[in-house]
Amino acid sequence: MSTEGQAFVKEIPSKSEQFSDWYTAVVLKAELADYSPVRGCMVIRPYGYALWEGIQRWLDERFKATGHVNAYFPLFVPESFLKKEAEHVEGFAPQVAWVTHGGDEELAERLAVRPTSEAIILPMYAKWIQSYRDLPVLLLQWNSVVRWEKSTRLFQRTSEFLWHEGHTAHATLEEADQECLVILEIYRQLLEDVLAIPVLVGRKSPTEKFAGADWTYTLEALMPDRQALQAGTSHFLGQNFAKAFGVKFLDRDNAEKFVWSTSWAVSTRLIGSLIMAHGDDRGLGLPPRIAPIQVVIVPILGKDGERVLAAARELADRLGKVARVKLDDRDEYTPGWKFNEWEMRGAPLRLEIGPRDVASGAAVLVKRTDGGKATVAQDGIEQTVLAALEEVQKEYFGRAKAFLEAHTVSAETIEQLAEAMRDRRGFVRTGWCQEQACEDAIRERTGASPRVTPLNDAPEGACLACGKPSTATVYYARAY
Amino acid sequence: MSTEGQAFVKEIPSKSEQFSDWYTAVVLKAELADYSPVRGCMVIRPYGYALWEGIQRWLDERFKATGHVNAYFPLFVPESFLKKEAEHVEGFAPQVAWVTHGGDEELAERLAVRPTSEAIILPMYAKWIQSYRDLPVLLLQWNSVVRWEKSTRLFQRTSEFLWHEGHTAHATLEEADQECLVILEIYRQLLEDVLAIPVLVGRKSPTEKFAGADWTYTLEALMPDRQALQAGTSHFLGQNFAKAFGVKFLDRDNAEKFVWSTSWAVSTRLIGSLIMAHGDDRGLGLPPRIAPIQVVIVPILGKDGERVLAAARELADRLGKVARVKLDDRDEYTPGWKFNEWEMRGAPLRLEIGPRDVASGAAVLVKRTDGGKATVAQDGIEQTVLAALEEVQKEYFGRAKAFLEAHTVSAETIEQLAEAMRDRRGFVRTGWCQEQACEDAIRERTGASPRVTPLNDAPEGACLACGKPSTATVYYARAY
Repeated sequence: MSTEGQAFVKEIPSKSEQFSDWYTAVVLKAELADYSPVRGCMVIRPYGYALWEGIQRWLDERFKATGHVNAYFPLFVPESFLKKEAEHVEGFAPQVAWVTHGGDEELAERLAVRPTSEAIILPMYAKWIQSYRDLPVLLLQWNSVVRWEKSTRLFQRTSEFLWHEGHTAHATLEEADQECLVILEIYRQLLEDVLAIPVLVGRKSPTEKFAGADWTYTLEALMPDRQALQAGTSHFLGQNFAKAFGVKFLDRDNAEKFVWSTSWAVSTRLIGSLIMAHGDDRGLGLPPRIAPIQVVIVPILGKDGERVLAAARELADRLGKVARVKLDDRDEYTPGWKFNEWEMRGAPLRLEIGPRDVASGAAVLVKRTDGGKATVAQDGIEQTVLAALEEVQKEYFGRAKAFLEAHTVSAETIEQLAEAMRDRRGFVRTGWCQEQACEDAIRERTGASPRVTPLNDAPEGACLACGKPSTATVYYARAY
Repeated sequence: MSTEGQAFVKEIPSKSEQFSDWYTAVVLKAELADYSPVRGCMVIRPYGYALWEGIQRWLDERFKATGHVNAYFPLFVPESFLKKEAEHVEGFAPQVAWVTHGGDEELAERLAVRPTSEAIILPMYAKWIQSYRDLPVLLLQWNSVVRWEKSTRLFQRTSEFLWHEGHTAHATLEEADQECLVILEIYRQLLEDVLAIPVLVGRKSPTEKFAGADWTYTLEALMPDRQALQAGTSHFLGQNFAKAFGVKFLDRDNAEKFVWSTSWAVSTRLIGSLIMAHGDDRGLGLPPRIAPIQVVIVPILGKDGERVLAAARELADRLGKVARVKLDDRDEYTPGWKFNEWEMRGAPLRLEIGPRDVASGAAVLVKRTDGGKATVAQDGIEQTVLAALEEVQKEYFGRAKAFLEAHTVSAETIEQLAEAMRDRRGFVRTGWCQEQACEDAIRERTGASPRVTPLNDAPEGACLACGKPSTATVYYARAY
């Protein structure tokens, strides 16, 4: 490695020692996002946006395959609509950006820039849905929402963020609940199979549920600082919004009934988790299935520059048919500088080709995960590269999974939980009576909150606060 | 055709007699869009949004193939930034929706909900661009913008609309101008080859150019009411925004220079043109290349329902591999009702299959353009359907092209222009001295404005207002 390269890398703080500074440095230096002149709002740069496009493409295909369609609803929600569901407005009003003027005119009614769209979508459902034949409605939109934040962090918490929001309406409770679970499973696959982030799947406690929901399903990931991060949610809204907005249908039995509705979302916050989960002291780490560039080819020209370049181009053409490939043939940078830049930007594989490789029909393949180098034959290199991409994908997931398991413990007393939160954080599995008072007491004492109640696990042991037999198993953690 | 079917169609006004009511009825009945509780803002329903997704998919591929990348910039523009380019703020300020409060707090500075994003993007370019090596920057975003409108119309003019906005920066004037033309040609292909809407291509007059541009390229289509509609624009911004926001670079010659920038857009307004251009008294007409459903298969069950359904499913499977196909097997509607519904929704081809067709290995293919019916063999039906889709695509373009040509005339006097505008509207080709005073005089006298100056046509005749030799050829029309 060249000295020049070392200098490049030295500019990032250490991930283990200065996690927060490391995070910001990687986001900026890998050109994923930047600060904007608007307080709390970020600019998503092309390389970061390509990650979001990858997430969109993957989800869009699954949503469509499960019968969902895209639509678009207005950016604005009249204040009177936002107020129709009491819990909902209470939850969101403090964070709303308000439009008060159109041109020079003061508006008769303030408009909320949507913090979420239930209050503008459900009134349309009231208009569109008449009969059981009109159900289910399975609809989502890709857009941005605004929630005025006091303190912000690129991707993780910004006053505006991108997401999709699904909004469905069903004839029965069971169907609506089933819809929540279908979506939850799609999210789990996205997190684990694509982003290589293992998650705990289950329900949120009542204090952590969505404002206006009966219950909320969640996916919780563990970040390297051993704090939990909510990676996606799917809300069972019961008939709360249907009643607030009068969404009724005539059922097969000729009775008029309120629909059961759901809503669900993942956002650009996911990109924050991705950065935190897989990066290291050399920069960003990207699992191949989401990496915008999976293989970067760096020619090392030497004396026989033209022949090397021609060979590199041929490899790029061939590999471009099976993977996302970038040939970095810029002549103003040295190979060492490029190695470091592409490590910083998280390209899963690097293929180096120099004069000796050209002569021997070989190339050098380097894995981003561990820097492992192998000389590989140009013959059949497509298969070699595809296999290496799968390997890197598995390595990222395997490491993250081992980390999650190593930082998940059980507790039988509140002291054990408090100690875990003080010393090593992570998830702590224990019993809970599901009473609000006990949740509050534990939060106060330990700083931990109940992140997720697994769906199918039987209750274990006793509640850490009151000592009564638990009615649920729960994972506690400190959270983002 | 069943009586029930006739009733369904009768509900739409006639296109030729009540164009405006016809338009609204088609948008609502084909479920493309709906009015929302927010004044001037529409809801784009799934079928209408599928048209937008088709446009996005087609453009996204071409933009990427020509080196462009997607990104995302904040929804908000601080008022002080909007004011930095004088013409720009003057053009947009009267239509801006202003955010004045975040939660309960009044903001120190008002934020514009973006009417367009030059004023939030160029400051970032000032930060990102240092050297000629950083150029060109070829970037766009897909989002929504808000321009407060007094009178609105679904798709054609709404206070919020969806679009993409491209923003590029270049080292030279020539490169920036060339970029405008590359984009203009992509737009022309979208309009003519995909949406089957013929356009006049050229420059806008100075009064009609974008606020802050040196010049604007445009595509102008002629709608069935013989008024012109601007279908897309590409703006050469010169160094105006670069100077306002300090976007400089160090060139190869070591001199610091301002970049040359462009911006360009098409919006959901295009969907309005599409509806107007190809619909008829039976409803929407969709060229196959943009139709979300290209072939609808309607089984006519008769006595041998199960066999017919099985054959229809087999055809749907086979055709689904080569086209976008929908099998309408709903049992609560009659075939006649379905025929009418899918004509209303503009499906280019309908395939009917009944017991006799099953017996003879045939099906009946019906074209939406002219209702032409043909009995076709199930053997090789993929090729038959693909050929018919091409034919329908050509028919739509051919009709629209013939209409445009039939309604484009020349004028040598202002009286001829005035008479044309009074009697039959359409485009009027004539000479122009390019003086503002003459443009104003003609607008006042005839109601027509200069829509487009063709790029390569030599000036013809004399200016209709002042009689001096023309310096440009121009097409006048009344416009949306």
